[in-house]
Amino acid sequence: MNWLLPEYIADALPSEAARIETLRRSLLDHCRLRGFEHVMPPLLEYLESLLTGAGQDLDLRTFKLVDQLSGRTLGVRADMTPQAARIDAHLLNHQGVTRLCYCGSVLHTLPANISAGREQLQLGAEVYGYAGVEADLEIVRLMASAFERARLPLARIDLGHVGIFRALVEAAALTDDAEAELLALLRDKDVPGLAAATAQLPSPYREALLALPTLYGGSEVLDRAAEVLPASLPALRAALEQLRHLIESAPELPFSIDLGDLHGYHYHNGIVFAAYVPGYPAAIARGGRYDGVGKAFGRARPATGFSLDLRELARLLPPVKPAGGILAPYAGADRVLAGHIAALRERGEIVVELLPGEIACEGPQCDRKLVLVGGHWIIEAIQED
Amino acid sequence: MNWLLPEYIADALPSEAARIETLRRSLLDHCRLRGFEHVMPPLLEYLESLLTGAGQDLDLRTFKLVDQLSGRTLGVRADMTPQAARIDAHLLNHQGVTRLCYCGSVLHTLPANISAGREQLQLGAEVYGYAGVEADLEIVRLMASAFERARLPLARIDLGHVGIFRALVEAAALTDDAEAELLALLRDKDVPGLAAATAQLPSPYREALLALPTLYGGSEVLDRAAEVLPASLPALRAALEQLRHLIESAPELPFSIDLGDLHGYHYHNGIVFAAYVPGYPAAIARGGRYDGVGKAFGRARPATGFSLDLRELARLLPPVKPAGGILAPYAGADRVLAGHIAALRERGEIVVELLPGEIACEGPQCDRKLVLVGGHWIIEAIQED
Repeated sequence: MNWLLPEYIADALPSEAARIETLRRSLLDHCRLRGFEHVMPPLLEYLESLLTGAGQDLDLRTFKLVDQLSGRTLGVRADMTPQAARIDAHLLNHQGVTRLCYCGSVLHTLPANISAGREQLQLGAEVYGYAGVEADLEIVRLMASAFERARLPLARIDLGHVGIFRALVEAAALTDDAEAELLALLRDKDVPGLAAATAQLPSPYREALLALPTLYGGSEVLDRAAEVLPASLPALRAALEQLRHLIESAPELPFSIDLGDLHGYHYHNGIVFAAYVPGYPAAIARGGRYDGVGKAFGRARPATGFSLDLRELARLLPPVKPAGGILAPYAGADRVLAGHIAALRERGEIVVELLPGEIACEGPQCDRKLVLVGGHWIIEAIQED
Repeated sequence: MNWLLPEYIADALPSEAARIETLRRSLLDHCRLRGFEHVMPPLLEYLESLLTGAGQDLDLRTFKLVDQLSGRTLGVRADMTPQAARIDAHLLNHQGVTRLCYCGSVLHTLPANISAGREQLQLGAEVYGYAGVEADLEIVRLMASAFERARLPLARIDLGHVGIFRALVEAAALTDDAEAELLALLRDKDVPGLAAATAQLPSPYREALLALPTLYGGSEVLDRAAEVLPASLPALRAALEQLRHLIESAPELPFSIDLGDLHGYHYHNGIVFAAYVPGYPAAIARGGRYDGVGKAFGRARPATGFSLDLRELARLLPPVKPAGGILAPYAGADRVLAGHIAALRERGEIVVELLPGEIACEGPQCDRKLVLVGGHWIIEAIQED
């Protein structure tokens, strides 16, 4: 049973691999043409570098190893975003705006959900060095256009803003414990629990916290939020303003609002978003603002970005019709035949040169063959039985 | 110091990443057009699957992890060849010839040599199901043409054949311990040690084993080998015949012979080769025949292939001149400008749309800019200071 793979780990066989590879090239080029530079951080780093600013979730998801050279603990990356932030902060050291994209495998100790694999092919793009909402808009548009390029347009982009909850927590002067409790209740959408936990809080913060799980829907939610949330808090007003700017600047995008979404609260500090496509139960891409993550690498920089699992996305696409190949007999010392085969490949044709005695073509589907007719090599269709 | 990477682990920053990515696509396409199907095995497998038939070297090079789901030991792959053999033997299950190629990261606990990294990007191709030397020829030619495609023609391809040493060991009825001792001495080219260790062996095997380290040079070595090695051993004669066939079939390739090379002896069982380019001290690509590795996966199949480290290869190439991009002002609600930018990207141009207030272009090197002249958007060269 040596051929069995661990649970939630899978090979990509030729047809799936072709789909992933096509998508990988297409989306990396998509980012590149928009000025995002491709970087390739390593699979393995010192654990503390990988976990910088990332919180406990990522720690539990990260496989640990011991480095024989240094004796220190290494991690196999579970997320490439902190690596991109490290590269921006320390290695590139640009003063202005930096745009980076990446695509690589990440490993998770446990699957994130029932449909996710433990090895994902993470593709992402990040803008560093720009605090304005225009950078968030650039990222959201990049994400949406990437899905269009993949011919799987997004059905919905849920927008949230972790600054709203954070502003309420500060204004209500909550302890860290109380903040963590409310965060868990909001994540579980536990309204009765939330009512009990906020019972002793002063107005208008109690009402505002209770309202958060209800602030879900179309862009009209922003008007409702402006009414029920305390306008006296500048950070809260600014957060709503940013969301409004995003929605009004990109009327072509299928935005909805979810002010109770605090996914990645410890990591993010501004607009957050989750993208959905028909037929997939979880978010197919996520992102948001995470200013200051680079601080641990020596330089705090505004940052916003998105990422997705390319293997998951490829699985949602219709199968690629395989390019039909051409079967050619073994050329051996026949230079004319060898020249024909080389010329066909130069033109982008798949040519399988059969080895002496090789018969079938179970590999690449061949729909044509090279045959010698009247002293000339010609291409003939293969008749199906 | 969170930005420090472990020793022998490195980021690929934009210019290196561009070189690697270009090479990756080019060489995978090169294999694909020759009928090699792309597969993507996982980074992580049960340790015993990864090490099947591979010997102790690979075991020591493989990082080990514990699977939280099964409690079993996992390995991060240090070599993708056994994974490809598993896919051929168990998953594809073709009766005829299968051609596979792959490209992915592998990790090593320690660097293989002073110039190798611990994370390599292994690219390889394998032919399964064909025992004849024509398959070895196909692989060697594929490897050599891949280097030509990368514009780094091979300077030398050293050929060996592990069947020669194996035939001598069998004929001389050596114990496993004696075989291991001779193998170590041959690897170290320790001629005095070899003379001592073979002193008690019968003729002509003693002379033959002593001759192996001297059988190094051009194709004339095969004539010399036919004289000094015992012609009475059919396996030995067959091995020399195969080497001769390879050399005579591909006069265009820079072959040399090294019958004392027993690299990968426990894994290989036929022709082996190592490819060299100017300016790199070690072999830049290696390969050979390893029939029977699929046995542990349920199906013993003839197999031959080659692999190389794409990162190492990319480092030997001259830097790619970066494609010059176009700077565009922030489009905002300006649909005409947004349309121009989109059209340029459709044509394959890199266009950086500057965010409000963004000035420099430290990222992709931009040599042109989009400017409004007399009501029309035109592209102007950027004057260098």
